[in-house]
Amino acid sequence: MAVWPNHEAASRRERLQQLMRQQGLDGCLISQNVGIYYWTGSMQTGYLFIPREGEAAYYVKRSLLRASSESQVRTVDLGSFRQFGAKLAADYPAVFGKSRPRIGADLDVMPAQLYLKLLELVPGADWKDASSLLRRVRSVKSPFEAQRIRVAAQAAARALDDGLSELKEGMTELELLAVIEYAIRRQGHIGLMRMRGYNQEIMTGMVAAGEAAAEPSYFDGPAGGLGLTPAAPQSASGRPIHRGEPILLDIGCCIDGYVIDQTRTAVIGSLPGQLERAYEAAVGILRRTESHLAPGAVPEQLYAEALEMAAEAGLSEHFMGFGADQVRFLGHGIGLEIDEWPVLARGFAEPLEPGMVLAIEPKFTFPGLGVVGIENSYLITESGFETLTASPEKLFIV
Amino acid sequence: MAVWPNHEAASRRERLQQLMRQQGLDGCLISQNVGIYYWTGSMQTGYLFIPREGEAAYYVKRSLLRASSESQVRTVDLGSFRQFGAKLAADYPAVFGKSRPRIGADLDVMPAQLYLKLLELVPGADWKDASSLLRRVRSVKSPFEAQRIRVAAQAAARALDDGLSELKEGMTELELLAVIEYAIRRQGHIGLMRMRGYNQEIMTGMVAAGEAAAEPSYFDGPAGGLGLTPAAPQSASGRPIHRGEPILLDIGCCIDGYVIDQTRTAVIGSLPGQLERAYEAAVGILRRTESHLAPGAVPEQLYAEALEMAAEAGLSEHFMGFGADQVRFLGHGIGLEIDEWPVLARGFAEPLEPGMVLAIEPKFTFPGLGVVGIENSYLITESGFETLTASPEKLFIV
Repeated sequence: MAVWPNHEAASRRERLQQLMRQQGLDGCLISQNVGIYYWTGSMQTGYLFIPREGEAAYYVKRSLLRASSESQVRTVDLGSFRQFGAKLAADYPAVFGKSRPRIGADLDVMPAQLYLKLLELVPGADWKDASSLLRRVRSVKSPFEAQRIRVAAQAAARALDDGLSELKEGMTELELLAVIEYAIRRQGHIGLMRMRGYNQEIMTGMVAAGEAAAEPSYFDGPAGGLGLTPAAPQSASGRPIHRGEPILLDIGCCIDGYVIDQTRTAVIGSLPGQLERAYEAAVGILRRTESHLAPGAVPEQLYAEALEMAAEAGLSEHFMGFGADQVRFLGHGIGLEIDEWPVLARGFAEPLEPGMVLAIEPKFTFPGLGVVGIENSYLITESGFETLTASPEKLFIV
Repeated sequence: MAVWPNHEAASRRERLQQLMRQQGLDGCLISQNVGIYYWTGSMQTGYLFIPREGEAAYYVKRSLLRASSESQVRTVDLGSFRQFGAKLAADYPAVFGKSRPRIGADLDVMPAQLYLKLLELVPGADWKDASSLLRRVRSVKSPFEAQRIRVAAQAAARALDDGLSELKEGMTELELLAVIEYAIRRQGHIGLMRMRGYNQEIMTGMVAAGEAAAEPSYFDGPAGGLGLTPAAPQSASGRPIHRGEPILLDIGCCIDGYVIDQTRTAVIGSLPGQLERAYEAAVGILRRTESHLAPGAVPEQLYAEALEMAAEAGLSEHFMGFGADQVRFLGHGIGLEIDEWPVLARGFAEPLEPGMVLAIEPKFTFPGLGVVGIENSYLITESGFETLTASPEKLFIV
């Protein structure tokens, strides 16, 4: 567990305050555990209020004792939630003394029940959805954060080695994933991966082979996997791994709060020619994307170029899922959550900045046969990029 | 993976419709993945509409192909979300033709952003928070569901055996938990546990010893554990396990969607007398609770009696957490989520019914020393209860 540098919370707050002023917000109320951790250094239950100017306050429900010892932001006993509006007004008279102060909140994750309660408890406020703004601040990682992701990347690479060393014909997808998970857990994986999207879940990733990998899925990624049950319809299944089929090893872990995401393709024996060519096409798209990867590159243009390359290879229908179940992106930000910003997708027109961390994952799906592809995570630097993924880049032949 | 009996979805829908009529609702819209699975048998992305009378419809966003093959409820392509209100009105004229139909929704989990969108897309509806009603239906398990929980209980018991067989002095909490997790995963644990409460998370449970187990925590349980980092402040830490301290083994897993929850206490050598007496007091509370455990027993009375017994033992301040960080319940429902209804807590005055499944977990916390206690899961039967937890009931001495 790494200790936050002294000014980490203050500099994160200042970046948010700058955007708040640009967008005419008077304050932000953050309710989600991940957001509270990002801006305080503590993940205890409560609410974080960040005014447009000046210091934030962390209203803690439980445990105040623990929050006080961890937080870089001043902690306050939340006390009776009924009094929360009055407490905010007393602590921030410049904000709540205004007529209809504009207060942003994380409405993409805050439950409606809580939102309706806040309307009642803080009656004067004009609530705004600040989700985009909060996600924009978090999309640029500090050096401290980038280092956390490097550590997670090393753990994932070692776990992949463990898995590949035990891979053999007839082993089930689940058995292989269990070996990999055991390895990341002993290296400090926190036991879960966080995903922001409503109803989206992720285990430690996905190990799936042959037609099981190519099953259509609700999961917001190019491949979901069959899974063990309709009650968890993704990732590894109980299906044995056969010779000559692609084994997709999409592995993540979360250490000290930060996730990594990477994919490698393996095969026992050799791949059918069609799939091997598709794997090479995925590598080609990754290389081409890397050639643009620097501050100033535009996410939606990177996606558009990948679509063109897939089309040139005659693989449009197979790219990033198959047919109606394709997803419409090439990659995504990672950090405290696996589905951070920016997304390499249409609508993301703001250029890349130094400090952004992206998982880029060109993949091709062949129903009945499997999924092939590759995924690296990258840190955008001043002059280009640093590859964070530590595993060798190749088709693993066992 | 077990196949749903033929009328499973229909009988679940009918129980909800009965409550909807009692409460004057015209329909319910279910948005959460777990709720959608509970009422359809599929967990693909979309919305489930259940009218007050008649058949439900499952509007699927992705994957329609997969939902169609899994769902016991009619599936419909969601299509453009912009048209969702019009689609509902066309499919359910008796509901949406009314002036201001009262539509319940799962507002305790639905994000505010989605709620605000629904206000706009289904303009005539009077939205009601149906969380309590949905949780009440789910609190009574069908025989099919009870059997799923029995299966999970067997897996947890075998995993505990694996862990105890490897337990030795100097091993870290994390190493011990990793062994247990590896065992449950290979038996079909889906790789995550679901918890409904906002900002609440659970790994596979908690293995924590000595003062690390007694750390105050945001976690809504009697013991949270120190955890590996403030970014995941619960469960196992990297602390070595010492001789003579209580080791709390609070283990869960999730198989085919259903969770189990159980706790055992272990020690290398022997416990200090004070902690051994507290362990015996916990067992006494569990026995007394069992003596009332049958249809008709009132949850809040079971909690009140446990508080009295803790007071008689002179342990009030240590019961279910310490001091300001105590939680105010004795147990909770389990099923698809770990925090189901009923809760054995003040405010739960509706008597127990056959089919309810409860995890009952008397525990005592001693800051600086550790946590001792026991937890069994029970199915309420027509005449009393069945203990689902399969592990021997004793203080495990290694």
